[in-house]
Amino acid sequence: MPRDFRHQVRTGAFTGPTAGYCGDYAQANLAILPRDCAEDFLRFCVRNPKACPLLAVGEPGQFDVPALGRELDIRTDVPGYNVYRDGVLCEQPRDIRELWRDDLVVFAIGCSFSFEQMLAQERIPLRHVDEGVNVPMYRTSIPNQAAGPFRGNLVVSMRPMSGAHAIRAVQVTSRFPSVHGAPVHIGSPAAIGIGDLSRPDYGDAVSVHEHELPVFWACGVTPQSAIESARLPFAIAHRPGHMLVTDIPNASLAVL
Amino acid sequence: MPRDFRHQVRTGAFTGPTAGYCGDYAQANLAILPRDCAEDFLRFCVRNPKACPLLAVGEPGQFDVPALGRELDIRTDVPGYNVYRDGVLCEQPRDIRELWRDDLVVFAIGCSFSFEQMLAQERIPLRHVDEGVNVPMYRTSIPNQAAGPFRGNLVVSMRPMSGAHAIRAVQVTSRFPSVHGAPVHIGSPAAIGIGDLSRPDYGDAVSVHEHELPVFWACGVTPQSAIESARLPFAIAHRPGHMLVTDIPNASLAVL
Repeated sequence: MPRDFRHQVRTGAFTGPTAGYCGDYAQANLAILPRDCAEDFLRFCVRNPKACPLLAVGEPGQFDVPALGRELDIRTDVPGYNVYRDGVLCEQPRDIRELWRDDLVVFAIGCSFSFEQMLAQERIPLRHVDEGVNVPMYRTSIPNQAAGPFRGNLVVSMRPMSGAHAIRAVQVTSRFPSVHGAPVHIGSPAAIGIGDLSRPDYGDAVSVHEHELPVFWACGVTPQSAIESARLPFAIAHRPGHMLVTDIPNASLAVL
Repeated sequence: MPRDFRHQVRTGAFTGPTAGYCGDYAQANLAILPRDCAEDFLRFCVRNPKACPLLAVGEPGQFDVPALGRELDIRTDVPGYNVYRDGVLCEQPRDIRELWRDDLVVFAIGCSFSFEQMLAQERIPLRHVDEGVNVPMYRTSIPNQAAGPFRGNLVVSMRPMSGAHAIRAVQVTSRFPSVHGAPVHIGSPAAIGIGDLSRPDYGDAVSVHEHELPVFWACGVTPQSAIESARLPFAIAHRPGHMLVTDIPNASLAVL
């Protein structure tokens, strides 16, 4: 159960990537920003809902976010954190209690693990899972809607599929807008500014078989990339792959 | 309104193809079969719901089908009929009162005009409409589920679209299973046995632009083709493009 899992994280008994753990529950991308730029970032998320679907936003200084889970402490319950100062990654602590401030605002952003669980339940193969690597991610030529210092281009994840699976994947993921929702693009990588599928900007390349289409979803790396580019004096995010495990059942995120 | 339109058809004032008329109302593919093969055909439709979505089935001998429209007479209200004897097209009358028999069963099958209206409302361009031709249709290598003498392969219609429009088209048409519903395939024509997009088996070729994907829907020509191949002693269908205009609002066909 998520609460037990978070307890293991908090005590240091679990320190790894979270993929595959508590699979029925939503995992979240994390952004923690000082109040003076949190307002801009909130508008950035609202303007770019496919890349930055908000599961929850805390009050300034709030480190327990009840909407995300019972007895949750955002400062200790994530297996790894990235700490940025002036836009530069400075530390990767396993606990941020020492860094906590009363002006910090927590943003929890939906993660593709949730919709991947739904696709797997439909017996739609996920190539990166079958090949045991991270999903390939690419910077696109699609600009984000800017807000304050947050801007940049959309980052997408890619899953190759047969035509029939791509159609079913659109139907399934459309039901889950809070975890990136429907794909943003199918087919030609060049149409969205991707030069070479075999050279992802993040994650690992996967095979694309004959007759398969690349299917592209908006990716939670988009807000992380926007935060880095904004060169904020101070910001905290989860360490990639080391997500917050929430008490929110994936099934409850379906809008239909 | 559909009833007035059918009246014009009945009196011979309208004799052409029905595309674009009474656009808010469903048009139907028509199959009229003797009772002794109607049972097989009904099972064929049920087993192949994407190609043969039933809007209504009449009782034997029934030529007014209230589920389809008020004061409707199926023998006079379609602008053109195809009459088959032993599987061969023999006549194309504008009225089948002389041919009517007490054992004939009416099948009304949903038509893509309904979902095309929904796509047009979303501002998704339809290439065959823009180019002023009939939608291209292709025989595929996907076998139908057989029932009695009815079998053969799925026939699909094809509409080229950008990736983003293809995604939206899946969402929109998924809401309308009774007019063919979601696409059956996107992408590689060869994957479903189509050799050359520029040589459709029915209808007309259309341009496919750079970065566009061919999007394929199950087509109402499938049942017509299955009826022809079954070489029934006697069968009637609508003349292609000359559909039955029903009183059923397209909007009412949405399942969501």
